[in-house]
Amino acid sequence: MMRRIAIKIEYDGTDFHGWQLQADERTVQGVVEAAAARATGSPARVVVQGASRTDAGVHALGQVAQFDTESALPCETLVRALNHWLPPEVAVLAAADAPVDFSARFSPLSKLYRYRVVLSHVRRPLSERYCLRVWEALDLEAMEQCARLLEGSLDFAGFATKVGPNQNTVRTVTRSNWLAAGGELHYEVEAGGFLYNMVRSIVGTTLRVGRGALSVEEFARALAERDRRTMGPTAPARGLALVEVRYGDRWLPPWQGPRAEV
Amino acid sequence: MMRRIAIKIEYDGTDFHGWQLQADERTVQGVVEAAAARATGSPARVVVQGASRTDAGVHALGQVAQFDTESALPCETLVRALNHWLPPEVAVLAAADAPVDFSARFSPLSKLYRYRVVLSHVRRPLSERYCLRVWEALDLEAMEQCARLLEGSLDFAGFATKVGPNQNTVRTVTRSNWLAAGGELHYEVEAGGFLYNMVRSIVGTTLRVGRGALSVEEFARALAERDRRTMGPTAPARGLALVEVRYGDRWLPPWQGPRAEV
Repeated sequence: MMRRIAIKIEYDGTDFHGWQLQADERTVQGVVEAAAARATGSPARVVVQGASRTDAGVHALGQVAQFDTESALPCETLVRALNHWLPPEVAVLAAADAPVDFSARFSPLSKLYRYRVVLSHVRRPLSERYCLRVWEALDLEAMEQCARLLEGSLDFAGFATKVGPNQNTVRTVTRSNWLAAGGELHYEVEAGGFLYNMVRSIVGTTLRVGRGALSVEEFARALAERDRRTMGPTAPARGLALVEVRYGDRWLPPWQGPRAEV
Repeated sequence: MMRRIAIKIEYDGTDFHGWQLQADERTVQGVVEAAAARATGSPARVVVQGASRTDAGVHALGQVAQFDTESALPCETLVRALNHWLPPEVAVLAAADAPVDFSARFSPLSKLYRYRVVLSHVRRPLSERYCLRVWEALDLEAMEQCARLLEGSLDFAGFATKVGPNQNTVRTVTRSNWLAAGGELHYEVEAGGFLYNMVRSIVGTTLRVGRGALSVEEFARALAERDRRTMGPTAPARGLALVEVRYGDRWLPPWQGPRAEV
């Protein structure tokens, strides 16, 4: 009997060319598909679709993906088998039997991203794998004002790259805030969906405000006018992580895993 | 005029054969000595002595070392020049002009180490570079009782490997505690000095108590009897970091660096 399996995945994106399958590059989707074929004993390719096609260098604490299999293995055994075949930088945290029409990509209620900034005048070897380093003094209050402006249903065209001619660029942001965490600043943003490069573009632009190169009023005006030239630059990938993808109860039974704690 | 420079160093120890110079291996001391020669324009080897000879794979947030130079460069410039010549995994956070009889190794008041444990039934790619992963349920209360037993001036012979025949194995531990931090447990221990492998041996033995394989009473008895056979195993290096080395005011003026925030 064909089952649709949802899996929750953590990965260090440093050494991958992003999530999406590419013919000649090592991608997260590529290694997960290979592991799924091995774990389920499938001679054919097992197509794994992810909730978010994270860019090269972006990390994930809770990417979600789904694939179909005729394997009868319980979810906990599937998790162990997948991890056996995955490289150390990728791990399946849990799995769940999902309805056959579940789509990791199209069913989410929301996705939560976190961007980490470490504040330091010198290189920080223990932080920079997962953080952008900023040495200038930052006006956190101004940055928080920018974050507030982004909440709600807005046209984010100014914060996107590669916008298609007829693409709907309105997105609904339900959380947007900066918080201080030790010697770091974290930007957390949750939305039903994101445009291409939207989080990194928001962070890059907000850091310009933090440095005083752009005022909060200019930020607000550029947002309202969808002015891409005022926005950016796109902040580096390594600071970004996909933290969580949420689905309604209709879609996912509880995650199963070796004593699923995720 | 000869100056003695103290430097504070952060490094990711993953890809080093420890601190101490070795003829055929890449070590932290080796790359720091090479950078110091370049930064100060010295044609001869610049000997850099560290406070702690951390093992292969052990990290540092605040290793301290010293070297002598005739360079007249201000400390802030020295920090920038050293970082220019260091690989990405190592950074000098700050420098200070120290008295000529200052010794990073022999002058410390105390050293603080932290050992990180991540609790998870499955592999955790974003944590395991800096944490030991433990999947069994741990009795944190019993582990805290063990930590309490280690405070004070005690003979730690049972927790050391490679003890010399006439070596004094008494050390004074001024802080020893386990604390929960998100999905991690951290062991922090501060002492005037440590025996070889002492922290990793304490952690390995305490985890046996946490798992219920050893009682707190057996732990206390083995400590009193300096029974090496009951102790251990030595916990893996990757969870350990040298956090801070403290010196008295007599030894070190304030650290200088690019807006020294360390």
